[in-house]
Amino acid sequence: MPGKPSRGLADVVAASTAISDIDGQAGRLFYRGYDIDQIAGAATFEEIAYLLQRGSPPDRAELGAYQGEIAAGRTLGKLVSGCLAEVATAQEPMEALRTLVSLASADDPDSGSNEPAAEVRKAARLTAQQPVLVAAYEAARRGQVAREPDPGLGLAANFLLQITGREPSAHESQVFDTCLVLHADHTMNASTFAARVCAATLSDMHSAVVAALSTLKGPLHGGANEQVMRGLEAARGEAEAEGADPVEAVGTRTEARLRSGEKIMGFGHRVYKVEDPRARHLRQMSADLASAAGDDVYYRMSRRMEEVVLAEKGLYPNVDFFAATVYHYLGIPTDLFTPVFSVSRMAGWTAHVIEQHADNRLIRPDSEYIGDSGLTWIALEAR
Amino acid sequence: MPGKPSRGLADVVAASTAISDIDGQAGRLFYRGYDIDQIAGAATFEEIAYLLQRGSPPDRAELGAYQGEIAAGRTLGKLVSGCLAEVATAQEPMEALRTLVSLASADDPDSGSNEPAAEVRKAARLTAQQPVLVAAYEAARRGQVAREPDPGLGLAANFLLQITGREPSAHESQVFDTCLVLHADHTMNASTFAARVCAATLSDMHSAVVAALSTLKGPLHGGANEQVMRGLEAARGEAEAEGADPVEAVGTRTEARLRSGEKIMGFGHRVYKVEDPRARHLRQMSADLASAAGDDVYYRMSRRMEEVVLAEKGLYPNVDFFAATVYHYLGIPTDLFTPVFSVSRMAGWTAHVIEQHADNRLIRPDSEYIGDSGLTWIALEAR
Repeated sequence: MPGKPSRGLADVVAASTAISDIDGQAGRLFYRGYDIDQIAGAATFEEIAYLLQRGSPPDRAELGAYQGEIAAGRTLGKLVSGCLAEVATAQEPMEALRTLVSLASADDPDSGSNEPAAEVRKAARLTAQQPVLVAAYEAARRGQVAREPDPGLGLAANFLLQITGREPSAHESQVFDTCLVLHADHTMNASTFAARVCAATLSDMHSAVVAALSTLKGPLHGGANEQVMRGLEAARGEAEAEGADPVEAVGTRTEARLRSGEKIMGFGHRVYKVEDPRARHLRQMSADLASAAGDDVYYRMSRRMEEVVLAEKGLYPNVDFFAATVYHYLGIPTDLFTPVFSVSRMAGWTAHVIEQHADNRLIRPDSEYIGDSGLTWIALEAR
Repeated sequence: MPGKPSRGLADVVAASTAISDIDGQAGRLFYRGYDIDQIAGAATFEEIAYLLQRGSPPDRAELGAYQGEIAAGRTLGKLVSGCLAEVATAQEPMEALRTLVSLASADDPDSGSNEPAAEVRKAARLTAQQPVLVAAYEAARRGQVAREPDPGLGLAANFLLQITGREPSAHESQVFDTCLVLHADHTMNASTFAARVCAATLSDMHSAVVAALSTLKGPLHGGANEQVMRGLEAARGEAEAEGADPVEAVGTRTEARLRSGEKIMGFGHRVYKVEDPRARHLRQMSADLASAAGDDVYYRMSRRMEEVVLAEKGLYPNVDFFAATVYHYLGIPTDLFTPVFSVSRMAGWTAHVIEQHADNRLIRPDSEYIGDSGLTWIALEAR
């Protein structure tokens, strides 16, 4: 006898994991037992990807070797290169990334293997490749070729270099590196869960990552930071056209939207009951970048929205809210915000595939049947 | 407080559905309330795809219109055509299908829309397109072009025509049509569940189908019928090389494998406690095709294996066991058995996406943390 359905599996423990943990009541996030408040700003994305994928922080020799794997993986394979121009012209960013990673399995020497050593190598390669795919797509859709990566720079700085075409400042690189760290994993979110459901049939890592990208594409998961930025841009544009103060205007507009029952993107979280710890870091980063840019209008608008939503609804900003302005100040095109999320989450997705395969069981839930029963099939001629 | 983990979600009701239902104790399967024992042989795949996707059996006018949509959807779009040769040369069948469906969203006029009317159109188009993609892949990897579909034939007959290059007999077409009917849906199997997890972020139908294909690729889900056939081929080859009777030899070999603790593919099912009702139909179809082919060795080998596994383990054949020989007798290349599964299951996947979007909630389970806690991050320099 099946039990009651758990809509959205909200209170169902679907897996055991040693990769990350959330304390929703205290507003804390841990990567393999390390509080992100200790990690953010203190560790590079490469160190964290290593920690998630391989289980413990690298020492200097291990990190050097891993950085070598990342540098070697910063390439586009033959099949990806052959199809890139057509894909970039015809597909939206997340469609294109779904396709490009699916193509990329052909160019990975370990793609067919679920052996632990092969999976650890593939995880590094996929982590290295994702920012290069996003930058190659961005260039190709404009008929251009992305700048060559600089072997002297890390993953975060190379991505900014390739996506903006200019050398990032040390401050920008450090901020973006911390962004990547903050988004690297988040327990059983929808895309990670999709990756594990896929991997649990003993499908391969590329397939699981393609399933995760397909899932991240949905606006309830990956699209929020982009929508936050589009909302800020629209509100600023309207206010300036009317000669109004954008900060005051966005406050009034947000109040009106909340009172008419609209949902404001970037606020609230199913797991955190208090402030999302990632939001606190991103808020500070947004303030710092605004100050460096000499244009703090979007930052002040965000702060005003935050005050209004807290006063009206008691909701705190989540990871997406201040990520929007941070990415904007870093010069990342707004429609690439979800692809940037995937650059970071690749570290977590691949770690979860490794963990799933290490102690696998097929994930096959029950369903509750709610349709008609006992019907008699009538032949077409008699219908 | 999270509860105990449900490994594999085996007894968790993850969704309510009106699409299909299984009575595992009685060994019965229902599509929208109709017992497949009534449907198998009495309805075409097009009628069943319509039933699953649109909720009730079509009348003659509705079926005619749907057949028109299927005929119109039997095309390769521009992006797929542009990349087909390179993909077919570089990727294995399920890798390639994952890529080709991901490419195909660019060629679908409704790809960006989750509106019900758009999704119903896309479901028909994806159902029409999948057999054409498999046949186009099969031809392209041999440097050829698949035969043009025949507008006078249905989906099943056209697939056999395109994949084998010769006009199928009426009997072959009817048998394959029933195969497609029998595999069209099966409640919350892993690939369907992956499609729903993906769709629940409000991602689009093509993405959900790509997630499903990625999941079906795993040998615990989609690979069993292919492995059954490879096992039969190996056993027959060995026996004939030794001048032994393949039927006796496969019986002895199966006994030995079972006694050494090996799992025999194609037997047992998490949900069915008695015989899988689909296996009964497929067994008869295998017998009929063997008789028509004048070569019943693989059929008799299968029967012998069935006897041994039942006697030794009390396990019944599942849907994959007799599907293997049926596909073989129909002339389908063994490494395309899982792609053929996807041709059929496309009807169910798309129906589940429509149902998920009609009453959506994000699917985001909990996880249980089993790793270290309270660790202190040590800077790289001090490690």
